[in-house]
Amino acid sequence: MAVTEDFVNLRMLENGSPVNMEATEVKMRQNEIIQPLLTDLYQLTMAYAYWKSGKVDDTAVFDLFFRKNPFSGEFTIFAGLEQCIKFLFNFRYSDSDITYLKQILPPYVEEEFFRYLKNLTVEDVTLFAIPEGSVVFPRVPLLRVEGPLIVVQLLETTFLNLINYSSLIATNAARFRMAAGKRIKLLEFGLRRAQGPDGGLSASKYAYLGGFDGTSNVLAGKLFHIPVKGTHAHAYISSFSTLADLKTRDLAVYDENGSDLIESRDFVETCIKRRDQLATLLGILLQEANDGELAAFISYAMAFPDGFTALVDTYEVLSWSGETPSQRYISEPRLHYRSGLLNFCAVAVALSDFGYRPIGIRLDSGDLAYLSNRARDAFRKIAEELTIPWFAQLSIVASNDINEETILSLNDQHHQIDCFGIGTHLVTCQKQPALGCVYKLVEINKQPKIKLSEDLEKVTIPGRKDIYRLYGSDGHALIDLMQKHGEPPPLAGNRVLCRHPFLESKRAYVNPARVEPLLHIYWQNGRCCQPLPSMEQLRHRVQHQLGTIRQDHKRNLNPTPYKVSVSDSLYSYLHKLWLQNAPIGELS
Amino acid sequence: MAVTEDFVNLRMLENGSPVNMEATEVKMRQNEIIQPLLTDLYQLTMAYAYWKSGKVDDTAVFDLFFRKNPFSGEFTIFAGLEQCIKFLFNFRYSDSDITYLKQILPPYVEEEFFRYLKNLTVEDVTLFAIPEGSVVFPRVPLLRVEGPLIVVQLLETTFLNLINYSSLIATNAARFRMAAGKRIKLLEFGLRRAQGPDGGLSASKYAYLGGFDGTSNVLAGKLFHIPVKGTHAHAYISSFSTLADLKTRDLAVYDENGSDLIESRDFVETCIKRRDQLATLLGILLQEANDGELAAFISYAMAFPDGFTALVDTYEVLSWSGETPSQRYISEPRLHYRSGLLNFCAVAVALSDFGYRPIGIRLDSGDLAYLSNRARDAFRKIAEELTIPWFAQLSIVASNDINEETILSLNDQHHQIDCFGIGTHLVTCQKQPALGCVYKLVEINKQPKIKLSEDLEKVTIPGRKDIYRLYGSDGHALIDLMQKHGEPPPLAGNRVLCRHPFLESKRAYVNPARVEPLLHIYWQNGRCCQPLPSMEQLRHRVQHQLGTIRQDHKRNLNPTPYKVSVSDSLYSYLHKLWLQNAPIGELS
Repeated sequence: MAVTEDFVNLRMLENGSPVNMEATEVKMRQNEIIQPLLTDLYQLTMAYAYWKSGKVDDTAVFDLFFRKNPFSGEFTIFAGLEQCIKFLFNFRYSDSDITYLKQILPPYVEEEFFRYLKNLTVEDVTLFAIPEGSVVFPRVPLLRVEGPLIVVQLLETTFLNLINYSSLIATNAARFRMAAGKRIKLLEFGLRRAQGPDGGLSASKYAYLGGFDGTSNVLAGKLFHIPVKGTHAHAYISSFSTLADLKTRDLAVYDENGSDLIESRDFVETCIKRRDQLATLLGILLQEANDGELAAFISYAMAFPDGFTALVDTYEVLSWSGETPSQRYISEPRLHYRSGLLNFCAVAVALSDFGYRPIGIRLDSGDLAYLSNRARDAFRKIAEELTIPWFAQLSIVASNDINEETILSLNDQHHQIDCFGIGTHLVTCQKQPALGCVYKLVEINKQPKIKLSEDLEKVTIPGRKDIYRLYGSDGHALIDLMQKHGEPPPLAGNRVLCRHPFLESKRAYVNPARVEPLLHIYWQNGRCCQPLPSMEQLRHRVQHQLGTIRQDHKRNLNPTPYKVSVSDSLYSYLHKLWLQNAPIGELS
Repeated sequence: MAVTEDFVNLRMLENGSPVNMEATEVKMRQNEIIQPLLTDLYQLTMAYAYWKSGKVDDTAVFDLFFRKNPFSGEFTIFAGLEQCIKFLFNFRYSDSDITYLKQILPPYVEEEFFRYLKNLTVEDVTLFAIPEGSVVFPRVPLLRVEGPLIVVQLLETTFLNLINYSSLIATNAARFRMAAGKRIKLLEFGLRRAQGPDGGLSASKYAYLGGFDGTSNVLAGKLFHIPVKGTHAHAYISSFSTLADLKTRDLAVYDENGSDLIESRDFVETCIKRRDQLATLLGILLQEANDGELAAFISYAMAFPDGFTALVDTYEVLSWSGETPSQRYISEPRLHYRSGLLNFCAVAVALSDFGYRPIGIRLDSGDLAYLSNRARDAFRKIAEELTIPWFAQLSIVASNDINEETILSLNDQHHQIDCFGIGTHLVTCQKQPALGCVYKLVEINKQPKIKLSEDLEKVTIPGRKDIYRLYGSDGHALIDLMQKHGEPPPLAGNRVLCRHPFLESKRAYVNPARVEPLLHIYWQNGRCCQPLPSMEQLRHRVQHQLGTIRQDHKRNLNPTPYKVSVSDSLYSYLHKLWLQNAPIGELS
C-alpha cells in the first residue's frame, strides 16, 4: 500500500542530498518543525524529575482521548495518526536540542541526564491506535501508548498537537459534506485565513480526508496529491478597463469532432455580437454591462477556452440610479450582478460558437439561493432559445462566508448551486476552533491509575483497556464497549452487558451481529507495523465509516448521543479504585 | 540591529552544509513551507491569463488591509511583516514547482509561460509597510505593494496568510495583557490545542510579541529566543502512589549565605514532620492528604530545589464523604485541593528548612478567585506563624480555560493570582479565529481602481495613497489620514480637513501637534531596505504604541471607534471615480 508523502524538504530532495536514503526514510519524512522540541517544557522538567527519582525503568500506559464531540455534534473523525507515526520514526534529540536544553534548564541539572536524553529512543514504545479516518466518540482511547514512563510522557504534547487540529478539521469537513449532500462539489479555499502557513496546509489535507473534493492551496496539492482548483479574483476583472485593453482578438475554432483546431477567428467581435443579442433575451440593459469586465472575461476565456469560469459580481449594479454612496445596501434579494451575468453569457455562448464548452460562474456575494436560481433561469432560457442544451447545466460556484448552517438553509431554499468554495469557517473551525484531546496516565508499573474529579467528565477510566464496537444486524454501530485488557472479547450473537461508566442504573444487554476490535498495533520495536493507507483510502474510509453510524447520531440539530460503555468487570474495577482513591472529606 | 532568527532548517545548519552562506541568507531563512506555491491556484491561472493577454508589462498597486478590528475591539496589532520580507527574499519557483504546475495546468498552457515563471523574481516589487508591532485600524493599508501586475498578484495569498494570523494573535495577546495589567505574568500554554504545529509556533511567537512573558513551547523558545516555562502535569503526580516510591531521601542543605552546600539530610522525613505540623495550622485533616501526591511533590522538589512549583489539584477532596460517583459536583466554591495545599506547604516549608526558596503553586480547576484567596490566606498564616516572611508572597499560577473575560471578572473578585497560563483561547483566538485582511487592486498602469459594492464596508479607496497619523498635544493619536500620493503632507500646527471616506457630512478640522507618516519602504530593487527589529524591540514597540492610543479606544466594553479619514482631495477623487464606475441601474 502506498504511503502518502507528507511534507518534505523538497528542495533538499531536488539537490539530491538524500540519494542514499532508504525508501522508508523518504516515506517517513515530514515537516521539520515536527520534532521532539515541539513540546511543552514541563515534559522535559518532568523527565528530569522522573529520571532523578529513579523512575527510569518505570513503565506506563497513557490514553489519548477527547471528552466531547466538537460543533455540538455527536461524532468525530479521527485524523493525524500518520503524522504521529512519522514523529515516532524521526524522534531523536539533536546536538543543538541538547545544547539549548542545557541553556534553559537550571545549571544543577546533571550532565548524565543530557546524555540520557541524547540516547533516548522510542524503540520501547508500543502504540495502539484506532485506524485513521474512523468515526470515534468521547472517552474512547484513540491512542493507547505504552512504554517507559519518561519516554511516553515526552510524546504527549506533540501527539495532542498533531491529532487535535487534524481531527477537528476532518470532522468539520465531514459535516460540511453531509450538509451539502453527495452531489455537490466542495472546495477548500481557506489558505489566506488559516492559522499560519501550516494551519493552511493541514486544513487542505484534512478537509480532503474528511470529504472535500479539492483545494485552492497549490502546495497542498503538490505535497498531498489533492486536486487543486481556482479561476480568478476580483482584481483580475478590475485590471481591465475597456475592450481596448485586449491585445489579441483571435481564438482558434475547435473542430466539431473536438480534436483539431481548424482556423482562428475574431473572438472579441463574436462576444460583442452575442452580448447585444443576449441583453434583450435576458432583459438586461446594455449600459448595465461593464466593458472592462467583458474584456477580462474574454481574455480569461482565451487563456482557458475549455476551463472558463467567471467571477460575476465585481460590478454590482445598484437598483437605484440616484443612490448615494452613503445609503446602506437594500436587503431584499436582487440580481446585483446583472453586468457579470450578461457578460458571462455572452462569452460562454461565443465559446460555444467556437466549439468550446465553458464551465460556469462563481458568486461571491449576496443572497445565494435567490441569485443561483436567477442564474439558472438565465442559463435555461439560453439553452432553450439558442438550442445549446448543456447551457442549462453550467456550473454555479458559491463562495461567500459559507458555513454548515448556510448550506442547510440554502438547501431549504432550493438553491441551484453545484459547488461551494469554503474558507474561514472550514479552516479555522470558527464554530469551535479546538478539539480538547487529552493524554492521561491510566497505568503505571502495571498498577491502574484513576484521576478523580468533582466534574464527572474529567474522571478517567483506569487501566489498560481493549475497545470493541458492536454492530446491529442492520450494519449500524450500536455501542462502543471498553473492557479491561485480557477480558474475553464480546462475541457476535452473544449477549453482553454494557454499562454506563458512571451511572449505576444505566446499563443494557446488547446482542451484537458483529464485533470489531478498535485498537490495532501501529508501532512496536522501533517500527511502524501497519501499512499506512493512501489519502484516497483514508477518504474512502471516512465515508464508509459514516455510513455505519445511524442518521440520528449525525444530524445537525439535536443529534442523539452515541453510547460508549464499559464492561461489567471494568465498571466494578473502576468503582473499587474510585473508593480506594477518594479521600474521606469533611463537610465544610 | 539584530534580525530575529525565524525558524530555520536547524538540522541542515548543524550538518554544516550552509557554511558558505552569506550572513543575510542565514538571517532570511524561514520555514520551508513558506514558498511561492503556498498560494491559491487562481493566482497562477490569473498569471497565465495576464501573461497570455499581453499584460506582462502592466504595473499595479495593491493595498493589504482589514475592514474590521477583531474581538469586538477597536484596535489591531500589526504583525507578520518580517515573514513577508523573508518570503520575498526567498521567492523563486523551483524546478519541481514548475514540473508540478505543468501537471496541473491544462496541456495547452504555453511552454514559454513556464520559462517566464522560472525566471520570475521580485526585483521590481516595491513594498511599503507600516512598521511591525504598530497599532493599526480598519481600511488603512498595512502594506502597499507596487510592481509588475503579475508578480504583485502572485504575492497575495501568502502575504495574507502570513499577516492575518500573526496580527490576530498579537492583538489577542495585547488584549490579555491589558486585561491582566502590568504586574501579572502571562504565559502561553497553547501548543497542544493550536491549529497544527505551525499554528502552535506562530502563536508562541506572536503572543510574546503582543505582550506575553513566555511560553511552554520549547521549540518556540529555541527558534525565537522566547523565555520557556513549565513544571509538571497531573500525570507526574499520579505516577507516584506512596512515599515508598521515593528512591532517594537525601537533599543537600544549602548554606545560609546561599553559596555552598554544607551537608545532605533526610528531606522526606522533614517533609512528613512539617506536614504533621501544618495540618493543624491549616485545619486540614491528615487523612485528606494523599501520600502519592506528597511523594511526587518531594521528588520534584529534590530535582528542582530552587524551582519548585506544584500543581495542587490532582486529588480533589470531596466535601461529602458518602458522595457517590454519580452525584454532580457542587457549584459553591470550596477548597477542593486541600490535599495539594497541605502537601505543597509541607514540602515548601521543608525546602525553606534546607535553605531553598520554593516558587509556588499552579491551580488548574475550580473557582480561581476564591481558591487563590484561600491559598494566599494559608501562605500568610504560615509566613506569620513560622516566621518565613516571603512565604506570603509565593506565586499562584492559574491555568484553567482562561479568556479575556475570565481575567476581567477575576479582577473584580480581587483574586490573588500572580500568573496566568493561557492556552486554547489565546492560540486559537476562540472569540474570533480569523482576521479578514484583504488585498485589493487600487491602481493599474497609473490609473486608479475602485471596487464598488452595495455594502459600503467593501468599497475600496482607490489609488496610491500616503498615510499619516495625527497626534494631539497630549501625545495621543487623534486620527489616521489617507491622502492621494503626492499631496503635501499635513504639518504639525496646521489645521487639516479630515473627512469620513463615505459619509459626506462627517468631517472635522484637526490641528495635529505631531504628524507621523505610517508607510515606510521595506523592499526595493530586490533588497530589504530597513533594519528588521529584534523580538524585544517589537515587544517594546507594541506596548509603546498602545500607550499612544486613548484608553476609550482600548477598553473591553463598548470601545470608541478610532477615526480613519481621507483628505478632502482624496474624498473628491474617490467620489468622482465612484460615479464614473457605477453603472446606472434600473429599478426592478
